[in-house]
Amino acid sequence: MGKGFPTAQDAEAAFYEAFETGDLEAMMNVWAEDEEIVCVHPGEARLVGYEQVRRSYAEMFKDRPRPQVHLGNQVCVQGVLLAVHSVYEHILVAGETKARPPILATNVYTRTGTGWRMLMHHASADPVRRADPLVEMLKILH
Amino acid sequence: MGKGFPTAQDAEAAFYEAFETGDLEAMMNVWAEDEEIVCVHPGEARLVGYEQVRRSYAEMFKDRPRPQVHLGNQVCVQGVLLAVHSVYEHILVAGETKARPPILATNVYTRTGTGWRMLMHHASADPVRRADPLVEMLKILH
Repeated sequence: MGKGFPTAQDAEAAFYEAFETGDLEAMMNVWAEDEEIVCVHPGEARLVGYEQVRRSYAEMFKDRPRPQVHLGNQVCVQGVLLAVHSVYEHILVAGETKARPPILATNVYTRTGTGWRMLMHHASADPVRRADPLVEMLKILH
Repeated sequence: MGKGFPTAQDAEAAFYEAFETGDLEAMMNVWAEDEEIVCVHPGEARLVGYEQVRRSYAEMFKDRPRPQVHLGNQVCVQGVLLAVHSVYEHILVAGETKARPPILATNVYTRTGTGWRMLMHHASADPVRRADPLVEMLKILH
């Protein structure tokens, strides 16, 4: 296991870089080795603990077109041992003709003995996304 | 404006009590008076700042059947100035024949000069909920 990061911002940058590159080891180095880490991927059930989170990224990174993530509207709160960032994730995937609706994420970082690491990631779709299943269903039915 | 709370747990209890009773003043006393408070109601856009959050609860509490909230599967991290709780909200509404799918919430609390207050609330529907629009659509169409 590598070291943590000098700041929560550095941990966040490493988190999204690992997401873009699909590097599982880099991704899991961002997360704290903790039985109580919490990860909620958009529209999915809550995952708790290092092994569940690792399995979810191993699955996600399999045969996946490489995405580009641009963060927007970041709101940060910084404590002594914890930092929380609320961000919009704008995800571009090569080959997709239209931009995906943004994802809203609450990212929690913790200062460990070796530096800052991710403790929680709660992501959910922006409202525009909610309508999609209905829209798709109507397309199918008409 | 009243005082904050002795612990983040106390602030969380007050948050859900204010939600159940629909007491806007009690609800807004739980929130930190901060331009960077963040609130995401399930399936809605992110709200930032005291006034946006206040307006959303004023709207929510209008002519609303009183809900009961039971929290489950709480995962808490406690810092010096910040605390983060990941919880499942099980919401019962009088008169509804079937239980609503649970809501997953990430609640962030901050220690202010007068005690602990809520700084962020990110709520999203559990996956079972995601299917509902399709199910309802199919009911309508068959």
